[in-house]
Amino acid sequence: MTMTMGQIVNHLAKGISTPNTTVDLLNPGYLDTEVQGIVTAFSASQYVIEQAISLGANFIITHEGIFYSHQGMQECLRHDPVFLQKSRLIADSGLGIYRFHDTIHRYQPDGVMVGLLQALDWHTYVVKQQPTSAILTIPAMEVKEVAEYIKAKLHIRYVRVAGELSMPCERVGILVGYRGGGDLAIPLFLNENVDLVIAGEGPEWETPEYVKDAVYQGRSKALIMLGHAESEAPGMKYLADVLSAQFPMIPVHFVEDRPVFQIL
Amino acid sequence: MTMTMGQIVNHLAKGISTPNTTVDLLNPGYLDTEVQGIVTAFSASQYVIEQAISLGANFIITHEGIFYSHQGMQECLRHDPVFLQKSRLIADSGLGIYRFHDTIHRYQPDGVMVGLLQALDWHTYVVKQQPTSAILTIPAMEVKEVAEYIKAKLHIRYVRVAGELSMPCERVGILVGYRGGGDLAIPLFLNENVDLVIAGEGPEWETPEYVKDAVYQGRSKALIMLGHAESEAPGMKYLADVLSAQFPMIPVHFVEDRPVFQIL
Repeated sequence: MTMTMGQIVNHLAKGISTPNTTVDLLNPGYLDTEVQGIVTAFSASQYVIEQAISLGANFIITHEGIFYSHQGMQECLRHDPVFLQKSRLIADSGLGIYRFHDTIHRYQPDGVMVGLLQALDWHTYVVKQQPTSAILTIPAMEVKEVAEYIKAKLHIRYVRVAGELSMPCERVGILVGYRGGGDLAIPLFLNENVDLVIAGEGPEWETPEYVKDAVYQGRSKALIMLGHAESEAPGMKYLADVLSAQFPMIPVHFVEDRPVFQIL
Repeated sequence: MTMTMGQIVNHLAKGISTPNTTVDLLNPGYLDTEVQGIVTAFSASQYVIEQAISLGANFIITHEGIFYSHQGMQECLRHDPVFLQKSRLIADSGLGIYRFHDTIHRYQPDGVMVGLLQALDWHTYVVKQQPTSAILTIPAMEVKEVAEYIKAKLHIRYVRVAGELSMPCERVGILVGYRGGGDLAIPLFLNENVDLVIAGEGPEWETPEYVKDAVYQGRSKALIMLGHAESEAPGMKYLADVLSAQFPMIPVHFVEDRPVFQIL
């Protein structure tokens, strides 16, 4: 039995309504191309594309865009050599690339969140799943213990932490990707009574400044920023496992890229 | 000779046209209040406000907003205890707080950039000042040497680096604040032929992903993210020096806050 890219896309989007402005799209690629192999990844980076080619996969399912932007290609890249070389490689390879962003976030619960909770081995601690966050009661730990636990579980080299490292925490709010901004993260402290927010990425002048003020007022609140890719890659790894189980005749690989940053 | 808050505000904004939607505003405060002392800061945090009070200053000039948002107060804060305690302190103190963001960025050259270049002792290396970036030719250094130099000069504990640490660089593009996004930062590599971009903050899926791809393609490009406050606080320190020289009868202090994040 063979599957086309269109069948996989329809399977992934089944029952999910995405906004009219969705970024989720097969581009490049044709819906009727037969899938030889699938690579899932946080981002369709040069490395991921080359890995897909060498694995014999002709279909990449990527969470973030190919060209360094949430919304399509920036005009400023038109003559950029990095863009041109990457575009040429993609065109020559005949790869289909499906951006799978809005749809997986609209799964109930959010598919990216499910992957992160599985990777953290915390799925049994969830007390509430909300559209943009999960609320957990974890075994009591200090903030620095949570940070070290996360680093070990996700195999990441660093996290950024706001608040007192020795603060004990039990009630935790988690937000993946760029949901670490004030509008989504700050209300969790009051409305959900969390001690600690764990997020992917967000503006530095919002949630971290709030936590700094809270701590200076003598309140017990903390924030751990994982990094955007670090918070969402586990969701794409989980997706590879799910697809592999659903379509055992198709080779499915998750490709993990190197972190964008190192700390000096 | 005495000065009112309105006179200082007019002095700071003299000859600068800001957009109709500017966030720059004296709020709270009255234009005709006599200035007893000025505190400049990156952010009017709880700590900065308490420092201003204990220094006897009644006027804070802050680059970022008071309540964890670029645009005024988020509705979600209305019942938040951190917000309420901070608001009460500000009201009780009688402080005037002037948001000085769009105006200083429209100085020619950008006043925040001038402060950062002074702090780095790199102002003599500037070859081009643009509205959102400065282009420099610095004495040749490896990326890791640049990172260590910056950390020492700005007294910051870490920077985030994308690219090869041993890459030599000479031509550098600098962007302060949240100008590290792809639309402003990426074109500097092609159009200005920079080896290295140094920025405050920006989305992780934009410029850092571009640099990761470029390096994987074998190109010599790198990125150092300083942190938002780390890149803009020197501008507010510089402002304090300038105001102090212009108005010697007014006590002017720059208050440096603790970094929002530590690395674990």
